[in-house]
Amino acid sequence: MDDAHEGPAAGRAHSRSGTRETILSTATRLIQESGVRALTLDKVAAACGIAPSALTHHFASKDELLTALIARRDEVQEARTVTRDMPGREVLRAWVGLSAHNVQDRHMVELFAMVSVAAGAEDHPAHDFFAARYVALTEMLEGSFAQVKESGGLRDGVDPGVAAQQIVALTDGLQVQWMLDPSVDMPTLLRAHLDGQLVDPLDR
Amino acid sequence: MDDAHEGPAAGRAHSRSGTRETILSTATRLIQESGVRALTLDKVAAACGIAPSALTHHFASKDELLTALIARRDEVQEARTVTRDMPGREVLRAWVGLSAHNVQDRHMVELFAMVSVAAGAEDHPAHDFFAARYVALTEMLEGSFAQVKESGGLRDGVDPGVAAQQIVALTDGLQVQWMLDPSVDMPTLLRAHLDGQLVDPLDR
Repeated sequence: MDDAHEGPAAGRAHSRSGTRETILSTATRLIQESGVRALTLDKVAAACGIAPSALTHHFASKDELLTALIARRDEVQEARTVTRDMPGREVLRAWVGLSAHNVQDRHMVELFAMVSVAAGAEDHPAHDFFAARYVALTEMLEGSFAQVKESGGLRDGVDPGVAAQQIVALTDGLQVQWMLDPSVDMPTLLRAHLDGQLVDPLDR
Repeated sequence: MDDAHEGPAAGRAHSRSGTRETILSTATRLIQESGVRALTLDKVAAACGIAPSALTHHFASKDELLTALIARRDEVQEARTVTRDMPGREVLRAWVGLSAHNVQDRHMVELFAMVSVAAGAEDHPAHDFFAARYVALTEMLEGSFAQVKESGGLRDGVDPGVAAQQIVALTDGLQVQWMLDPSVDMPTLLRAHLDGQLVDPLDR
């Protein structure tokens, strides 16, 4: 009779991570439907069919929930498009491809942009997470540019570290412009920027 | 006796705009002290010595107040650094100088970045204001690049319109990286990017 409360620890842990996963999938769906601004913890709880208190047990605030969504999405996108053992040029091509993919998923772009920027504030709970995320992203891209450089594929004077900072910054900044004006063509602008640094154009 | 309520319309308008100005200055000071996240309308009202209802008479929401702060700051910065009749190279030099100035004023950078990105959402009250702001900014910079190009100062293949989109995007994106890692040297990276497009380096 007490099984629901007194089951083995493994069972409880499994159910807890199941609830967590349900919350994250539901919140993603709600964001894709109505955007980040409209999302509230109460709406997520209602859509999951759980009590608000059960939700705050997993995510104490909207900030915490949004950060967890981004961490989960990073894993999915990394698996889908960019892997660490990909050749450098393939990583750059995948980066441009990712921006073409993002155009299909406006509310998720808004989520990433809003949380990355909000986390810039030193008092944001995810400040350290995002700082580490940007270091990892920039180092990964620096490695890709360095690999292209080693095989003679970078133009003279292009520094892999600076090129990595630039492509990340351009991507973030073009997203802002695209959100305000959907005619801004992110993939084309990113490809043109990279072609200016590469000996052979990306699509050759 | 009724003067306070029945004074001439001009007097009332003046007092109203005086209160509005006090609210904006106070909110700016509070942001510079404690950041954007910590700001609430109640704190601003308390610091102004007015009732919360008197404040919401001027600004119905935190979003509205933050947007008004940015509109006001735009005017100040435009007057200080960039004017429309400045020669193109001077505008680009002033743009880099502005980023060096912004490093001194972290919380205001956070304000601009957070509100610009939040306004990217189509349901944000300042969406149209920011869309127009980016159009104006990009057109101004496109004009500057075009002027440099006319006098033979741009390298072959650099398009003024694309260059304007790029420098705005790089600036926005580098601000995100700088907020997460203050060792990111925004002015140097912006100058290096522009020098790659100019026949003569910006500081010559």
